[in-house]
Amino acid sequence: MTQLVVVGGSDAGISAALRAREVDPSVEVTVVVADAFPNYSICGLPFYLSGEVSDWHALAHRTAAEIERHGITLLLDHAAQAIDPEAHNLTVSDAAGRARTLAYDRLVIATGAEPIPPAIPGRELPSVYVLHTMEDSFHVQAHLTTRQPRHAVIVGGGYIGLEMADALTYRGLSVTLLQRGPSVLHSVDASLARLLEDELRRHGVHVITGAQVAGISQAGSRLAVTYAPGNRIETDLVVLGTGVRPVTRLAHLAGAMLGQHDAIQVTRRMETNLPDVFAAGDCVETWQRILERPAYLPLGTTAHKQGRIAGENAVGGSAAFAGSLGTQVVKVFDLAVARTGLLEREAQAVGFAAVTSEATLWDHKVYYPGARPLTMRITGDRHTGRLLGAQLVGHWQAEVAKRIDIAATALFHGMRIDELIDLDLSYTPPVSSPWDPVQMAAQAWVAANSPSFAIPTTGPE
Amino acid sequence: MTQLVVVGGSDAGISAALRAREVDPSVEVTVVVADAFPNYSICGLPFYLSGEVSDWHALAHRTAAEIERHGITLLLDHAAQAIDPEAHNLTVSDAAGRARTLAYDRLVIATGAEPIPPAIPGRELPSVYVLHTMEDSFHVQAHLTTRQPRHAVIVGGGYIGLEMADALTYRGLSVTLLQRGPSVLHSVDASLARLLEDELRRHGVHVITGAQVAGISQAGSRLAVTYAPGNRIETDLVVLGTGVRPVTRLAHLAGAMLGQHDAIQVTRRMETNLPDVFAAGDCVETWQRILERPAYLPLGTTAHKQGRIAGENAVGGSAAFAGSLGTQVVKVFDLAVARTGLLEREAQAVGFAAVTSEATLWDHKVYYPGARPLTMRITGDRHTGRLLGAQLVGHWQAEVAKRIDIAATALFHGMRIDELIDLDLSYTPPVSSPWDPVQMAAQAWVAANSPSFAIPTTGPE
Repeated sequence: MTQLVVVGGSDAGISAALRAREVDPSVEVTVVVADAFPNYSICGLPFYLSGEVSDWHALAHRTAAEIERHGITLLLDHAAQAIDPEAHNLTVSDAAGRARTLAYDRLVIATGAEPIPPAIPGRELPSVYVLHTMEDSFHVQAHLTTRQPRHAVIVGGGYIGLEMADALTYRGLSVTLLQRGPSVLHSVDASLARLLEDELRRHGVHVITGAQVAGISQAGSRLAVTYAPGNRIETDLVVLGTGVRPVTRLAHLAGAMLGQHDAIQVTRRMETNLPDVFAAGDCVETWQRILERPAYLPLGTTAHKQGRIAGENAVGGSAAFAGSLGTQVVKVFDLAVARTGLLEREAQAVGFAAVTSEATLWDHKVYYPGARPLTMRITGDRHTGRLLGAQLVGHWQAEVAKRIDIAATALFHGMRIDELIDLDLSYTPPVSSPWDPVQMAAQAWVAANSPSFAIPTTGPE
Repeated sequence: MTQLVVVGGSDAGISAALRAREVDPSVEVTVVVADAFPNYSICGLPFYLSGEVSDWHALAHRTAAEIERHGITLLLDHAAQAIDPEAHNLTVSDAAGRARTLAYDRLVIATGAEPIPPAIPGRELPSVYVLHTMEDSFHVQAHLTTRQPRHAVIVGGGYIGLEMADALTYRGLSVTLLQRGPSVLHSVDASLARLLEDELRRHGVHVITGAQVAGISQAGSRLAVTYAPGNRIETDLVVLGTGVRPVTRLAHLAGAMLGQHDAIQVTRRMETNLPDVFAAGDCVETWQRILERPAYLPLGTTAHKQGRIAGENAVGGSAAFAGSLGTQVVKVFDLAVARTGLLEREAQAVGFAAVTSEATLWDHKVYYPGARPLTMRITGDRHTGRLLGAQLVGHWQAEVAKRIDIAATALFHGMRIDELIDLDLSYTPPVSSPWDPVQMAAQAWVAANSPSFAIPTTGPE
């Protein structure tokens, strides 16, 4: 009987365990979970803290009991200490520090990522939080419920920072968002980031860009955040929306090779260089489908896919990861902002003749009530016409997410931008136009970048 | 200077004219329009009659003035009488019956479709309406505004019938919908049609299936509709939601070959068999991309695409129509129902080993407020795993339309169903799940139809 041990109880780990049991119901699967919260939707933390999700238990993709019903053994509150790749075993320790050794035939490492501690003096002070685990969210929740804060500073305008600005505003706090760069969310172009900043301000968030945080200090019962050039703001709590890095100590000590961003190197079959050891999720390098090389792209969707592949292959399968396009979406108040593929600067950096066009279009026929503007940016190669990336901002109920997915599916197939016009997409006046906005944006790119015909005097329809 | 004449001022005709001018700004373009309403969104008529669109002028995709600003001459209220393909000219007559002849270098026929008069005694009575043109809608609107009807009977549960049931209910009428077949909307499977029928009934529509209408007669100031088996219903007005047929008399008399459903035969470059004569839109056969052969699939989206290609090729281009998948969506009260590709019975009829699975999934993570069920049916070939079609019903704001478009884009590329799982789609808890519902439905099909692994005991996530 094959023994499969999985280290990590989040998206990749649980996906691997479930898939292994699905493909081979005879495999014995043990999942080592560092805390008591297997298979939680970490993406849901901001909605728990906003109050939109009242019970944190609801954030579980599956309960522990559901996972165990699949024939999977969970070792909760156990830390993986060391892999012996020759002996094929894993040493773990429980909360009391008692060690034990698990023998494996196959091992899946799914140790995830951790926040990068920002180099800010005072980041260790009470009332300064990061948000990455269930435990982290309990600390913030305890602060919110017991201390009734009125004001929060959020450092960093990435996904978590934006979602927390929304969440804490929803919860009734006054929020200041400090962003080091010239605009929030540097994963989209500045013109779209401006739309997000407008939306944040419209909902009362004080957005300050170009703000380099110098330090956090105690100011009586409150905190003082100082930021260049020469400003100081008092607040009740600080949330640090930092970047993340792969958790790889366990793998590295066992001899696993590391690559981009020190993430674990894996094949597209999610194999490490260690015999019978697979790895998946936020701790590994991800195959970028357009670049055709590895990158570090920690995303929940990718973790699910990679975990599934690792689990299948750990029981003898031969699945391969098709690659990530970096497709992502975030909701900020009433807007959704989504992207897939490469930004122009990213595409240019690897040698594409990348050019971008921007178009603002109605999400559906404007005669039908409730039409909302969508702003879409299309990036493509000027020489080949190939689609390289797309970005879209609009009302979150204007099918922004699934419209970027049309572009993502086109990118998956390496389509040229003019070919998007050939797609047979659905239309009825309340939800689209005879040419979907994605196709109108494609037409705008083609019109601006094809010398073979004149640019239309009004927008394409 | 090239002279291009276009017959027909709806989607295909105006698209052809605009595209010709875009590609070759020197071409002289004249569009012959049978009525005074060029480029109107006929798909919008139900929303005009519901009152959601208060001014019918708003239904114009573009005004006549906007079209003329593109350098296009409009001949409104002119009927095309005859084509002389040898002499390269077209005879037209104005409203007073005065004939004139237009010389052309290239001609585009875009004469559209017309309702099939149903074989129902009494269909000529006053207060019995079809809905296909702006004029038709004015007649219904006049009835609604001047006669204050309280009850309507709609004959036919296709797209127009369903939209009019919604529209007239919205307008305050009591509505009875008579459908000959065992369920409404035979373009989707019965289990999804049931969801639509439930929605209609929930909004007060009296849905009667298996109702063969025998005749309509005057009953005092009202109408009486009799239908088998032996029923009679009195009403104030009747809307006949009939099928349509291509308008091809002009083309046929000139020697154009007809094909499926007597629609005009065209190449994928939208060429007829007549020299320098192109045709596009609801009057032509459409290349069906999965069947790889022509079919009759009159849809506004297709008309726009084909018109664009005809216009480009009429001025020397070489564009080819990529084919239709029959992608469509309709909103009925709070639901949208969408499909793309083939139904199981359609696929089986042409030799595919088609099997279908159905899954009901949440549109987004259920912990985030407002999650709504989506019911998706996936049809694929059991031997090859190839995706053949998809159908989806759910709340119209649950991204139903653009989710079917993900499937349509996958179909466009001939993907296998298991490959849908590889797509890198966007996720945030308010709009989706780490596996989009489209991917969960694909997983359900694979689990049900792949002998290589066990079916999961709970739904895939």
